Amino acid sequence: MYIGLVVASIVVSLLAFVFAVWLYRWVQAVPSSNPRIAQVGEWIREGATTFLRREYKVLTAFAGAVAVLIFLFLPSPVWKGNNIPNLHMALAYIAGTVFSGVAGVMGMRVATIANVKTAEAALKGIKPSFMAGFRGGSVMGMAVVGSTLLGVSLVMLITKETSTLLGFSFGASSLALFAKAGGGIFTKTADVSADLVGKVELGIPEDDPRNPAVIADNVGDNVGDVAGMGADLFDSNVASMAAALVLAGALDRTVGGTNSAIVFCYAAAGLLASILGVMLARMGDSGPTSALNRSTYVTTGIYAVMTAIATVAFGFSWRIWGACMVGLAVGTLIGIASDYFTDDTKPPVHKVAKASAAGPAFTILSGVSYGFISALPALIGIAVSSLVAYNLCAPLGDGYAMFGIAMAAVGMLSIVGMIISNDAYGPIVDNARGLAEMGGLGEDVLEITDQLDSAGNTVKAVTKGFAIGAAGLTVIALLGTFVSEVNEKAVELGLQLITGFDIMNPAVFFGLLIGAAVPAVFSAMLILGVDRNAQRMVGEIHRQFREIRGLKEGKPGVVPEYGKCIDIATNGALRELIPAGLFTILITLAVGFIGGVQAIGGFLAGNIVSGLLLALFMSNAGGLWDNAKKFVEAGHEGGKGSDAHKSAVVGDTVGDPFKDTAGPSINTQITVVSLISSLAATLFLTGSLFR
Amino acid sequence: MYIGLVVASIVVSLLAFVFAVWLYRWVQAVPSSNPRIAQVGEWIREGATTFLRREYKVLTAFAGAVAVLIFLFLPSPVWKGNNIPNLHMALAYIAGTVFSGVAGVMGMRVATIANVKTAEAALKGIKPSFMAGFRGGSVMGMAVVGSTLLGVSLVMLITKETSTLLGFSFGASSLALFAKAGGGIFTKTADVSADLVGKVELGIPEDDPRNPAVIADNVGDNVGDVAGMGADLFDSNVASMAAALVLAGALDRTVGGTNSAIVFCYAAAGLLASILGVMLARMGDSGPTSALNRSTYVTTGIYAVMTAIATVAFGFSWRIWGACMVGLAVGTLIGIASDYFTDDTKPPVHKVAKASAAGPAFTILSGVSYGFISALPALIGIAVSSLVAYNLCAPLGDGYAMFGIAMAAVGMLSIVGMIISNDAYGPIVDNARGLAEMGGLGEDVLEITDQLDSAGNTVKAVTKGFAIGAAGLTVIALLGTFVSEVNEKAVELGLQLITGFDIMNPAVFFGLLIGAAVPAVFSAMLILGVDRNAQRMVGEIHRQFREIRGLKEGKPGVVPEYGKCIDIATNGALRELIPAGLFTILITLAVGFIGGVQAIGGFLAGNIVSGLLLALFMSNAGGLWDNAKKFVEAGHEGGKGSDAHKSAVVGDTVGDPFKDTAGPSINTQITVVSLISSLAATLFLTGSLFR
Repeated sequence: MYIGLVVASIVVSLLAFVFAVWLYRWVQAVPSSNPRIAQVGEWIREGATTFLRREYKVLTAFAGAVAVLIFLFLPSPVWKGNNIPNLHMALAYIAGTVFSGVAGVMGMRVATIANVKTAEAALKGIKPSFMAGFRGGSVMGMAVVGSTLLGVSLVMLITKETSTLLGFSFGASSLALFAKAGGGIFTKTADVSADLVGKVELGIPEDDPRNPAVIADNVGDNVGDVAGMGADLFDSNVASMAAALVLAGALDRTVGGTNSAIVFCYAAAGLLASILGVMLARMGDSGPTSALNRSTYVTTGIYAVMTAIATVAFGFSWRIWGACMVGLAVGTLIGIASDYFTDDTKPPVHKVAKASAAGPAFTILSGVSYGFISALPALIGIAVSSLVAYNLCAPLGDGYAMFGIAMAAVGMLSIVGMIISNDAYGPIVDNARGLAEMGGLGEDVLEITDQLDSAGNTVKAVTKGFAIGAAGLTVIALLGTFVSEVNEKAVELGLQLITGFDIMNPAVFFGLLIGAAVPAVFSAMLILGVDRNAQRMVGEIHRQFREIRGLKEGKPGVVPEYGKCIDIATNGALRELIPAGLFTILITLAVGFIGGVQAIGGFLAGNIVSGLLLALFMSNAGGLWDNAKKFVEAGHEGGKGSDAHKSAVVGDTVGDPFKDTAGPSINTQITVVSLISSLAATLFLTGSLFR
Repeated sequence: MYIGLVVASIVVSLLAFVFAVWLYRWVQAVPSSNPRIAQVGEWIREGATTFLRREYKVLTAFAGAVAVLIFLFLPSPVWKGNNIPNLHMALAYIAGTVFSGVAGVMGMRVATIANVKTAEAALKGIKPSFMAGFRGGSVMGMAVVGSTLLGVSLVMLITKETSTLLGFSFGASSLALFAKAGGGIFTKTADVSADLVGKVELGIPEDDPRNPAVIADNVGDNVGDVAGMGADLFDSNVASMAAALVLAGALDRTVGGTNSAIVFCYAAAGLLASILGVMLARMGDSGPTSALNRSTYVTTGIYAVMTAIATVAFGFSWRIWGACMVGLAVGTLIGIASDYFTDDTKPPVHKVAKASAAGPAFTILSGVSYGFISALPALIGIAVSSLVAYNLCAPLGDGYAMFGIAMAAVGMLSIVGMIISNDAYGPIVDNARGLAEMGGLGEDVLEITDQLDSAGNTVKAVTKGFAIGAAGLTVIALLGTFVSEVNEKAVELGLQLITGFDIMNPAVFFGLLIGAAVPAVFSAMLILGVDRNAQRMVGEIHRQFREIRGLKEGKPGVVPEYGKCIDIATNGALRELIPAGLFTILITLAVGFIGGVQAIGGFLAGNIVSGLLLALFMSNAGGLWDNAKKFVEAGHEGGKGSDAHKSAVVGDTVGDPFKDTAGPSINTQITVVSLISSLAATLFLTGSLFR
């Protein structure tokens, strides 16, 4: 059954690719004819391609170096015996980076076509425009989930080693770390500078073609929110499968059972459910937001039914199915909680808007406060779901409890194909709005694209909550794989098995304190990167307005040097992301080599709790400020141009790197740290200063 | 020897009170004659007294209710047998609140006299003015440390029960929670509103007597920074002694030894060293900052020598002395790290000032980033010191390792008499500056008081770092006392002993996640309290400027209604602090009754790491913004009135509740949670939903 399900998974993943190609063609077939839009769309596509090419060049060098290090040291030093596992590990690592890169490029490429199509389809009405945006985003969704399932299945078919899967997962997450952080720095550099000079200083509208940073801003949506977010969710998705399969493999080997088969079966079911969900998605008369949300709920329902049928058909345990459903339910609940704190029809947004009338300091203070409070329901949700999943599966026998948590994570991420489709829809319609403005398609079209864009922002909060929740459960499960890996090595080396990490052990507490500091420092480095980079770009925008004659006045034929701004964003992003990435990796190794396995256990726990707290805080506070600004712009608290509006703009600017650079990158940072720890388990076990 | 040392401790603590009275008289004897200053000083004193009276009234009701609950339930339900321990516990709790209150009132009373004396002494020069401010602050230092040692000694002499000490400590910390949070809300409500309307809207100088909030602002310095901070450090000081004595008592009972004697001996030595340090403090030609820092270093030196002599004389273990010194050294290092991030001669302040030129959003983003980074060295310091203290004392036998950590905390807090003296100096000279301005003492005097005030701000960063570091070690030690308490009960009840808290246990992880969220939500509630309250007060100030004729123009004889602002600050503070305090207490009980002892172990650990992270972040970011504003005002980045200055003012306003309300209250929140857990250990052990 196991091999059969792995092969079936490969078939399903290929189906996803076929569907992605079909969607791609469908989007391409949407007619477009406006030459101005085609021109701007071409600029955006070029900018995005340039950035990705340069980013991947840097990453190739980095990944190559890491692959060599992996070959030399992991799972155990290459000179100490068998080279095959090391070779497998290094190749799996490279495969992880390549799969992630391919999914990112595919998604980005269609996104930069879909934006043009969405803009022009709006001339025919909101429904065709919605479909172009949504199906464009779905290509990314299908590519990511197909790559996950294909990659994981192939690694398992070829190497038959669950440890190697951790190498594949590490490849995915080290790429995601840079893609998310680099893309995040790029997009916010451009966004912040464009707003700062355009809207605040000169009072010209968003997406005004006179603004030299406007193309860079649109490019940023694609490299940060499409490619970066895709890499992020690819990473979480792979990590959740890897964690589940490592634990399942250990169970299957020791007590027997069909646990690995369950993982593949449920993952394939999730992909099929997402395909059906995307195919069925249509916009009715209730508007784009409810269309997006309905498609998520439909997919969830299909998934629950499909896995229930599979559970009966294959005789799987209902307890494991239950754990999976707990994850799915809590994911949805976390999304709803995030929505509460960021939706512009709910009290927090109104209160922040009201506080803004007293000055920007109050915008910040109230936003920070609600951001902190918003972390509580999500953390309680993750805490409760891990407790329930654990206790649900514990009666199945030793080791099943932790597997239950891993399956809750798999459940939460099962419908990720649909989540990504919704998420990638956002930047596509955001771009389309910009293109409609620059292409002069008129007020009616702008109204449609505004409506589509606002739906994108609303579902974004939900999908982000989902992504953070899933990452949370995944990394708890990865803590379990860490123990499982350490003990496998301990048996080989004849060392004592570890049973856990006691907080009263000072090595564990040592790790806990330092681990908690890491996400804070990591986010600070990214934010400072955006800050520095935006200051450079603001300087450049000022220069262009000063030196290019007729630009400010909008003289026909005068075009700003868009490329210069793209260059600044690109160079800055690549320069700023390296230190943050290295810091994360090096401090993990330092803690491991000083305090050993126990310190790493504490380090991971500290990293997870503080990382989740900060990620939720930053994402939600950022979303809250964004919507508070829009709420004021819609005419509340004095509307546009009022003092409240000025304050709200400050909040939005602070929130931008919070929600689109630092917040979502923390997810990846946690996963990277967890995977390095599992991979280097042997080294920490034998080579640390303290034991 | 033990009884001898307890009696000696009582003698030393009485000595501290005698010295405090001598200092009080010395301050009173400083001549003052300006009627205008006397008048304003009287207003401040009245306002502070009114606030404290009303606050204590609310707290009496609260403490009375808690005392009844303690009598009914702790250490075990009163109907289940012996009532004496319950009565002891309830009385010890009340004693803790009373001692804390008395020390707060004493300190506050002399501070509201010393401010007048310091202002007028400045007419004779900076040195006499410095001495009046410093000796005024020292009264608080002596009162707090004397009360600690007296209270702890008496409880131990009378009840001979270390558990009862936890009740005393809980009394101290529940009072501190409200004093710190309530005082913090009061002071920042007044400060923020006074600045917002005065400096930002009307452009009148700080401490301008036309501003209706100016007296409330000065009252705030006394109730928040003097009384609140005193209660906070009293709480940490008692908790560190209680933690050490609980562990020492367990050791003395099981393996014998002189551990409890060591705790008393070292604490008494710390008090003597502080007395000597205060007596020796003089301002030389190198200015007030170095006078304050020198007095700290002198005290540290005296303390090291005295404890070394005692160690020889009584034949104590050098390892325990070493743990104590590790704490002292790390406390100093954390102070230095805080200083780096907040001092206006160091890069972070300059960079934030520079970023401010690009707008308030960049002030916030860069300040948040450096605030996050500033937590790293302190957390590493606490992590390393607990690891070292643990390993230093582990060879002494079972249980000594955790005692080592407790002694590191005792060491870090040993010189707290001196730390408080330096800290209380700050609000006194801040007040003196205001009095000099309002009394029209002239530019020369203002220059002197400005210089003294700036020294106060600089050492404040160091003392705050010290306080947070000490709280960190103390609560780690309290985790040890929690285990010790639980196991003592477990033996009585014939239950299995707990050996620790394994992170892989889902109940522990459950607690860890929720514990991490608590300080974030707690701070958010306080900040929102300040926010709401300041909006009320801004409304009142606007009303007065609108309705009181001639006020804005400064017509002679027109006086604003200062009392109204004091009322708003008082009522608001009392109204806003209750929910935050209750939230903290109730969520601890909820986690304990749901997840049992294991969940509480995780909860405490999560609370400690996230609490330390956020406390350091908020205190340091707040200090950084404050000094960045002053740096700009000193003429950098365009100086006063420039765009950079406007942005820096926004940063300062955000930083005010960060550094003076939420940040320092988190300390107390952590201690309260730790103590409730230890006290309710039996209930959690027997009455929880999960075990």
